[in-house]
Amino acid sequence: MLKLGIIGTNWITGQFIAAAEETQQYTLTAVYSRHEDTARKFAEDNHHPEVALFTDLNKFWASSAFDTVYIASPNSLHGPQAVAAIKAGKNVIVEKPMVASTSQLHQLTDALAAHPDAFLFEAARHLYEPNFAMVRDFARQREISGATLVYMKYSSRYDAYLAGKEPNVFTTRFAGGALMDLGVYVVYAALDWFGVPQHAQYVPSMLASGVDGSGCLHLDYADFGVNLIFGKTTQSYLPSEIYSGKQTLVLDAPESITSIKLRGGADDRELAGPQDDNPMVREASFFAKAIATNDTQARDKQFALAKQVHELMISVRMAAGIHFPADDE
Amino acid sequence: MLKLGIIGTNWITGQFIAAAEETQQYTLTAVYSRHEDTARKFAEDNHHPEVALFTDLNKFWASSAFDTVYIASPNSLHGPQAVAAIKAGKNVIVEKPMVASTSQLHQLTDALAAHPDAFLFEAARHLYEPNFAMVRDFARQREISGATLVYMKYSSRYDAYLAGKEPNVFTTRFAGGALMDLGVYVVYAALDWFGVPQHAQYVPSMLASGVDGSGCLHLDYADFGVNLIFGKTTQSYLPSEIYSGKQTLVLDAPESITSIKLRGGADDRELAGPQDDNPMVREASFFAKAIATNDTQARDKQFALAKQVHELMISVRMAAGIHFPADDE
Repeated sequence: MLKLGIIGTNWITGQFIAAAEETQQYTLTAVYSRHEDTARKFAEDNHHPEVALFTDLNKFWASSAFDTVYIASPNSLHGPQAVAAIKAGKNVIVEKPMVASTSQLHQLTDALAAHPDAFLFEAARHLYEPNFAMVRDFARQREISGATLVYMKYSSRYDAYLAGKEPNVFTTRFAGGALMDLGVYVVYAALDWFGVPQHAQYVPSMLASGVDGSGCLHLDYADFGVNLIFGKTTQSYLPSEIYSGKQTLVLDAPESITSIKLRGGADDRELAGPQDDNPMVREASFFAKAIATNDTQARDKQFALAKQVHELMISVRMAAGIHFPADDE
Repeated sequence: MLKLGIIGTNWITGQFIAAAEETQQYTLTAVYSRHEDTARKFAEDNHHPEVALFTDLNKFWASSAFDTVYIASPNSLHGPQAVAAIKAGKNVIVEKPMVASTSQLHQLTDALAAHPDAFLFEAARHLYEPNFAMVRDFARQREISGATLVYMKYSSRYDAYLAGKEPNVFTTRFAGGALMDLGVYVVYAALDWFGVPQHAQYVPSMLASGVDGSGCLHLDYADFGVNLIFGKTTQSYLPSEIYSGKQTLVLDAPESITSIKLRGGADDRELAGPQDDNPMVREASFFAKAIATNDTQARDKQFALAKQVHELMISVRMAAGIHFPADDE
């Protein structure tokens, strides 16, 4: 049984704890927050009033109250906290995006090299869903002619941004913006399904705060092109599509695939299976099993993909002129 | 009654003749083809065996058998033939794209300046459809937050291209490719609905023949971005979308709008009206009325938009490294 500590006390942390406990491989034992009241309330709300509470990160890392940490702080803190966790000998599950800059990626890679026994996973939950795997099989078995992947949602925080506030996800300080927050899902899907492109180009629509509100990321492969469309300032109802000659696989946003249909042929039955109630159970289960069985091969394979995702995201972001304070660390 | 001569003997010419005659403002009187047999068969197939047939372009232009020409030759010939028609004193209806290069655009503009009485229209038929006008009203009355416009169809000629043949629409020689053939519809829609963007960038997926098989054209406006997605090598079922705050107008491809729904509000009724059986009747009627009433204002307004469309298309195409022989004329 993994003893789980968490950083970040928003809804996604609650969802991960529920998923982790559903696998029966984890139990919540430690909560970090900058404010003790927040930590206590979070522990109580998540049915664990007994856990150790921390307001000091150094004491948190030094504690033996937990062996595995789930990090869901603001984006710009993911990388440094993951590095600290590795150095403290913890297993690490870090939310997407796991790093916000080249230097963060290097520091994380260096920390892992120095701690070859450490387990680190980026919580790219959609990779572990059966419907995602079904699309992967299609993409890898068919000759692909292109794809259009869309994930564009009006963010509940955008109203606050428009009202003059500075929600983390719309600031460069916390490495926010459309690419970092939603784009990461479709970049993951594209690289998992089609591999690393020969060339990539990001054309963002910028907000005054310096982050991208939406954008189109074009991936150029040897024989086809893939358009990734994502944004946090508008609400899209577009499905996604993968093209194979005259046929088209139509699915919904890759972050949560509920429908898969092959059009342009004789048979356009629904191919998707039902989704899990909690979409984080599969990843939690995968991570726990890899840790329990010391499956370094699974770990390294997932990290190699994560590294490709972030190398691409950092490179297209910087080429598009989007700059984070994390780039100067 | 306008006396109609035609260049180009493919299906679209037949469709235009049917539309023109349905308006009762035109009658077919002359057919040009490089081959007399083709011209004769086309005249017969279109119920006008009596019309004058031409195989020599100079004789065609010099003839008084017609006063109005509809040009539907390969793309690279549209501009030069339109110029010749103006110089011959004809009214001109030229298929999209009306020019294939900067020099063709300049020559056309110069010819019009030298013949201020001449009437020239680019046959951007979708502009004249009531459903297109309904979307225009929405786009101009609402505060716009962005749009995704899609027109991506597997071309029947692509099979021939893949088999090693050289269909005109897949050659640089005839100024083919996705932008020129399908992109022009969505560029027209974007410029009509949102105006001229501050910046535009085209990211194509290239074919070995040197034309773009598909691509994503991003238009950057002061407060929002528009993604235009089009292609001739894959089949998309994606609708198009225009964003306005939390609401989204969902429509089908702007070249032929059969459905318009406003989502994200209380009422998502179908807003589109029925389409005409022949989608070219409205434009044929508009052109005939403008010519009959000497409406130079309508003519100049449409040409100003056409010029914006082609200035943008030429500029993004050249920036993307797509080169036509027409660029060197």
